[in-house]
Amino acid sequence: MANSPSGESMIARVVRLLSVFPKYNRPLSVREIAEYASLPVTTTHRLLKELEAEDLVTRMTDGGWQHGTRLWEIASRNSPVQSLRDAALPPMEDLVAGLRVHLSLAILDRNEVLYIERMTPNDYTVNIISVAGRLPAHATSAGLILHAFGSPDGRRLLLSRGLTKYTDTTLTEMQDLKDKLLRARHEGVVASTGAIIPESTGISVPVFGEGEYAIAALTAIVPIGQENLEVLVPQLRFAARAIRRRLGKTPDTDLGFVRETNPLPSDF
Amino acid sequence: MANSPSGESMIARVVRLLSVFPKYNRPLSVREIAEYASLPVTTTHRLLKELEAEDLVTRMTDGGWQHGTRLWEIASRNSPVQSLRDAALPPMEDLVAGLRVHLSLAILDRNEVLYIERMTPNDYTVNIISVAGRLPAHATSAGLILHAFGSPDGRRLLLSRGLTKYTDTTLTEMQDLKDKLLRARHEGVVASTGAIIPESTGISVPVFGEGEYAIAALTAIVPIGQENLEVLVPQLRFAARAIRRRLGKTPDTDLGFVRETNPLPSDF
Repeated sequence: MANSPSGESMIARVVRLLSVFPKYNRPLSVREIAEYASLPVTTTHRLLKELEAEDLVTRMTDGGWQHGTRLWEIASRNSPVQSLRDAALPPMEDLVAGLRVHLSLAILDRNEVLYIERMTPNDYTVNIISVAGRLPAHATSAGLILHAFGSPDGRRLLLSRGLTKYTDTTLTEMQDLKDKLLRARHEGVVASTGAIIPESTGISVPVFGEGEYAIAALTAIVPIGQENLEVLVPQLRFAARAIRRRLGKTPDTDLGFVRETNPLPSDF
Repeated sequence: MANSPSGESMIARVVRLLSVFPKYNRPLSVREIAEYASLPVTTTHRLLKELEAEDLVTRMTDGGWQHGTRLWEIASRNSPVQSLRDAALPPMEDLVAGLRVHLSLAILDRNEVLYIERMTPNDYTVNIISVAGRLPAHATSAGLILHAFGSPDGRRLLLSRGLTKYTDTTLTEMQDLKDKLLRARHEGVVASTGAIIPESTGISVPVFGEGEYAIAALTAIVPIGQENLEVLVPQLRFAARAIRRRLGKTPDTDLGFVRETNPLPSDF
């Protein structure tokens, strides 16, 4: 219904239009929005007017447009992602203040890692501009730990695709990836050196939901050569457990590290 | 474009559909969504399919629908509301732990107060189910402080409308409301007893943005007779300043309380 001449649905165009705003942290003009969303100016103008009627966008006094309050209200109230971020924010702040390392919190969305929070020790003000967006799961420590403690279906999807090489250390061989996942599953932690950024190491631990499924990955990013795992990993796990508890999950067992007695899922 | 027989725009229907989910904290069936959004089942089904293609909704393994990750991603990254909540969460947690009172954080959206966070001393896990939604500005301490430190245009809008009476103490006389705003402006705090809920008092202070404009109201809700203002107000102001600083605003002057030397805006 209401498809454009190109066959694109109206919803697809609205999504493209609304997705422009988070990339620019300021009100945008109709022409800018049209350009960044690759939409005709007339279409952009009409859609903005319809969106404004629902308070999904709002017009500032200077004439620029930005997201309306209602968009946040619809999308964020009771959102599982939002609940996870809310639960994670204080433990992450405590951790970044104590450890002085970069931290991120990520979830798995199909074969991509979606970063939902990111903190740096030099900037205590929360700045979601720095939320990093998406990265391929196989090339990040977060993606590997999420798959190691994820569903067999997710792992099948991961292993069924070509593995793009980003740096010298990105795992692109199927068997190497399987070995890495198995080791991650045994150790409850993944350290990936330079898999995306050559000069840094990501160290990720799982944030468990119910049972052995990871709902998120908590990652410290440190310069190569400064991976003090003995200090870092226990504190990452401490924070991961705090996040889990704040989500109202039962803090029953000490999942997340060596559990040789636990059977592996059958696909391992 | 693409209006329904009733003349309602497609965007309006999509908004109604998506707005159903935050009210129910679980996946919903097509029939439930149709019923709660007052849409025909066939329309609901078609819209869900289109929204699913853009990952705005997602279908769970049990067949129920819920918001997709992408909806959060579009709406929350760089959202001003989100930044405000992120900045406010840790100071509010500290405050609720110390004071053992209910707290809320609210913004003004036209003539309504939109509660973007709410915390109770008995529930330290963050639970955004409890975010309260909207209340009329004239009947809440948050709305009054936001108007006292808001724009003259906003005050004109407030004073141009009928003032609905909710309880015996709701202000419905124009002059009473003007007096209350003036006093709020002088004292930097509003206490409203039983204006919406008969047995409690809301005590609100402004969270300042740049200059003298309040971008949010921080409110303590206490049982009538327990309004220990000498203790409460300084701590509310302390937290309000912490929120402001975390937003990167210059913590220049001690706005928020008696400033008799400051000229009032001309509409006071």
